[in-house]
This record gives sequence, structure tokens and C-alpha cells, in this order.
Amino acid sequence: MRILTGIQPSGTLHIGNYFGAIKPAVELQARGDAFYFIADYHSMTTLTDPEQRRKNVLNVALDFLACGLDPSRSVFWRQSDVSEVCELTWILGTVAPMGLIERAHSYKDKLAHGFSPSFGLFSYPVLMAADILLFNSDLVPVGKDQKQHLEITRDIAIKFNLAYGEVFTVPEPEIREEVATVPGLDGQKMSKSYNNTIDIFGDEKAVRKKIMGIVMDSRTPAEPKPDADKNLAIQLLKLVAPADIAKETEERLRVGGLGYGDLKKSLFEHYWNYFAEARAKRAELAANMDYVNKVLADGAARAREVAAPILKKAREACGL
Amino acid sequence: MRILTGIQPSGTLHIGNYFGAIKPAVELQARGDAFYFIADYHSMTTLTDPEQRRKNVLNVALDFLACGLDPSRSVFWRQSDVSEVCELTWILGTVAPMGLIERAHSYKDKLAHGFSPSFGLFSYPVLMAADILLFNSDLVPVGKDQKQHLEITRDIAIKFNLAYGEVFTVPEPEIREEVATVPGLDGQKMSKSYNNTIDIFGDEKAVRKKIMGIVMDSRTPAEPKPDADKNLAIQLLKLVAPADIAKETEERLRVGGLGYGDLKKSLFEHYWNYFAEARAKRAELAANMDYVNKVLADGAARAREVAAPILKKAREACGL
Repeated sequence: MRILTGIQPSGTLHIGNYFGAIKPAVELQARGDAFYFIADYHSMTTLTDPEQRRKNVLNVALDFLACGLDPSRSVFWRQSDVSEVCELTWILGTVAPMGLIERAHSYKDKLAHGFSPSFGLFSYPVLMAADILLFNSDLVPVGKDQKQHLEITRDIAIKFNLAYGEVFTVPEPEIREEVATVPGLDGQKMSKSYNNTIDIFGDEKAVRKKIMGIVMDSRTPAEPKPDADKNLAIQLLKLVAPADIAKETEERLRVGGLGYGDLKKSLFEHYWNYFAEARAKRAELAANMDYVNKVLADGAARAREVAAPILKKAREACGL
Repeated sequence: MRILTGIQPSGTLHIGNYFGAIKPAVELQARGDAFYFIADYHSMTTLTDPEQRRKNVLNVALDFLACGLDPSRSVFWRQSDVSEVCELTWILGTVAPMGLIERAHSYKDKLAHGFSPSFGLFSYPVLMAADILLFNSDLVPVGKDQKQHLEITRDIAIKFNLAYGEVFTVPEPEIREEVATVPGLDGQKMSKSYNNTIDIFGDEKAVRKKIMGIVMDSRTPAEPKPDADKNLAIQLLKLVAPADIAKETEERLRVGGLGYGDLKKSLFEHYWNYFAEARAKRAELAANMDYVNKVLADGAARAREVAAPILKKAREACGL
């Protein structure tokens, strides 16, 4: 089974990204042939700074490799290193009814968020269909926001197969439950736009300061806290500490006797510890960018090998 | 100066196509580096029969080579053999405002003519911009119907250069005057959709029958015909006969004494003679398709050589 995941190169990642996207993506490696690509073509629809794009691509590559993406088991490449996807985008676009693309919510959402209406933004679902179909992906786990794009991909695959013969696997969607909505430092959903994030690979001093600065209520340490499970630091601790320790800490907070300062200190330590291995790995990789670039180049070569016969079949089917 | 011409692979060509498009295109070879491509990617927006597409591409290649396209002087290739144009289509699309593409008349016109609204049809002007900009074309002679597409191309080139730095040559349009609106057998403009055409490389017997069947009025041969210049056979004769002979024939018709049968016979003979060399050349080429395929393959290699550094520069500029 081939499982495809696209990764947006959108800058420094936080632990909301980690538990919501990176961890589940990395775990896919146990379920089949995992294909990961860093979607730099897609990033052009919202980011026009070339230096930032280059940096983001390498940073996200480092992040994923540090967090457990194993290039000996998986295929990991930069989207623009397999430019065949653009040819397939053209081919698929010619069988995609305009109404299908016009109905995509994402375009309207992006405009509502202030992006200017570009043809690229509008075309996004067609490139995404090509991303998926170029590799005959069986399974594409996506968040709820991408569900409609996947349906568009399925529709386009069916349209092509009807028009030109059976070429494409119609992919199965797998809608990822929000496994972990990670709360941010202010209690809202953790999100860069709320400026309430804890970076995965943040600077020690800065993250400590952020965590120690989480605002709590004015109850004394000794007071029992029957609402301990609602405590933000406890919620975050549950993500990064071993289950028994998190449970025990929650209990101590509930019955009274654990001060908020000590709680936050413990949260920081477990956070720091949770990502220690990945942090060391990332530092090692960052000191060896030749290796990272080689991983991406090898990944592109392997992705291309898979793509080539599928694209050839599609071209032949439509008389190119 | 690099002059680019796209050729639609739209089936059997008639003498209206010859005088309106092929002849002026072939004459461009005297003015600079002529680049010609057979637009099979574009054809996907209106034709979904793969066999027909393949046939049309080879037929139009034979037609152009027979009519004087000289592959030793010019670059001649099949669009889909240089798939880089699709990558540039994606790149350019991300800087193209949606409104610019929505304003294209051609899309609405096609819908008005009964084509179903596909994303590919809508995207046509963006692929056309890529066709032109991929080769830093200086000059693109187009018919009036393509004028707006060229303006869109210029706008996109300017947008890209503004966003990412000076990469693309902003091409100059050259709006081709309708040098020769060729009348069809019924006096309307010659057009496949009016079923009034004379094929360039038609079958001798069939064309003779068609020409001899042109309907004339009932005046006797002896009657003078002061409106001789309005006569359809005279108008066609002026295209295919030497100027002095055409003039002399018109004069004989005007003063009286030339019968319509003889006139049409003369028209057929001059038509047959006019294309004799091209016809022989086409038969020779058709018997040697290996050569034709080699011409297209060589053309693609040369086109790719020109495109590669331009695409590289564009990719680098936008951080891919």
C-alpha cells in the first residue's frame, strides 16, 4: 500500500504541528510505503519570497528527518525536483470540469484570509490531484480541511479513466481525526497566527521563559484543584511526559500541594526531554547538509522511478 | 530575433489555412530565428480522441514541411516533447491574477460554441504564456483572435519580473492583418465548419469535382461580365495562378468569350500546379516518416537547449 503525504514548507514548526501532523505522518511508515514530499510548488501560491522558500524547504526537511522520517524506509523528496507533476497537472486539468474546481472551498477561504486571487491559488486542487495520481497513491491521509481536495482528486481520476481508459488508481481518503488539538500558551488552539506557540526545536532559554510565563489563576499551592484536568500545563504535560508521570502530577495538583511554578518547571523539563533525541539528531543533520540534500536527491530519483511509467501510460492514453 | 509560432493540430488543412496561416508562417524564416511548435497540449482542451490527436500532429508536421518549413533553418517540435512548458505554466500561474485570466474572451467564445467548460480550456492563456516566455520569444505574430492572449502573456511576464526579478523578455505582438481571406466554394469565408473548403493536398478527382461544381450564374459565355473581379473562380485563381495569367483571365471574362466551364477548368489546373511541388514533397515525406519523426525529435532537443537556461533562471529566481 502506497501512502502519500504532502508537507507544506511553512517555516518554524511548533509542537501543535508535531502532534497534529508530523507524528501521525511519521507513524505511517509502519503501515505501508510512505511517500512524503515537501510541497514547494504549492507554497508559491501564498509565499513569494524565494529565500524564505528555500530556507523553509530545508528546515522542514530537517524537522521531519529529526522527528523520525526514515529515508531508508520511505521516499522523501522536494516536489519541484520531480517536475513531471506539472505535466500531469496540465493533462488532468483538461478533463477537470471548471465547476468542480470552482466549488473548492480552500480558494474562497484563502481569499477571505486576505490572499490575492491568483490563478495559482485557484489551480491548487489540480496540482494536488497530480501530486496524488502521479504515484498511484492508494491512501492519502488528510485533515478535514483537505477532504474536499481529495474528493476533487477522485473525481478527476474517474473523469480521466472514463475519457482515456483506466490509468489512475482512485485514491482512498482517510480523514485524520484531530488526534491532538494542542492548546497554545494562552489556552486557544496552538497556532502561529495566535502567537501562542512552543517551537519543537526552540531555544532552551526562550522556551523556558515562555512556559514559566503561562498565566495561571491565583489559588495557593496548598488549595485542592478539582479542575486539574483543565489546567493548561497539565494538558501539555500529557503530551510530552510519560503517561504515569503526567497522571501522578495531575493528581498532585488536584489534591493540593503542587505549586504552579513547580508544575511549569516540570512541564519545561519534560518538553525538553521529549524532543532531546530529535534535537540532537537535528543538530547533527544541520551540520551535515550535504547528507540532507543527498537524501532529497535520492528521494526525487526514487519518486521519479515510480512516476515515470504512470506518466508514460497517461501520455499514451491521451495521445501525446 | 526569435519569432515563435504555435500550430494547432486540427486535422486536414485547406487552402484558406494555407494562405492565411501556413504561408505567412513559413515566410517568417526570412526574418529571424523561427520557432514552430505543434500545440498538442493545447489540443487537449478541445479534442479528446487520442488517435486523432496523434494523426493530426503528424499530418500538420507533413503539411508544414511540405509547404516550406525548413528544419535546417528553423526549430520545429511537438509541444509535448518539451514538457518543461508545463512547469513554467505552473510557475507563471502563481503570479497571474485570476481576473486577468477570467477576462480572456477565448474561453467564453469556446463555451458559446458548445465546448464544455473545463479547467484546461480556462487555463489555455497561461499555457500560451509559458509557450512564449519559455523561449524568450521576441516576436509572436498572431491573428486578431489571439491578440488578447498575447497581452495576457505580456502582463504575466511583467508580473513575474516584478515579483522575482528580471527573467523574461516581454514579447512584442505583431497582429497579422488578414492577408488573404480566402473565399470558400459557396462564397462565404473558407472554413471547415461551412463545409466549403478546398484541401491543400486533396485528392485530384475529388477537388476537380468540387471546383467544377462551383455554382455560377446563367449568363452565356459570350456576354461581357463587368463584375468579373467579383467572380469566385477569379478570386481563387488570383491566389494560385501567376499574376499576369490571373489578370488576363479576368479580362477575358470581363469582355466576354470565356465560359465558366473553361474558367473553372483553368482554376483547377492552376490550383493543382501551385501545390505540385509541395504535393510531391509531402508524398516523399509521408513515405519516410522516420525522417519526419527525427526532424521533430531534433527540433525538441534544440528547443529544450534554448528553454533550459531560461527555465533554470526562472526556478532560481522564485526559490525552487
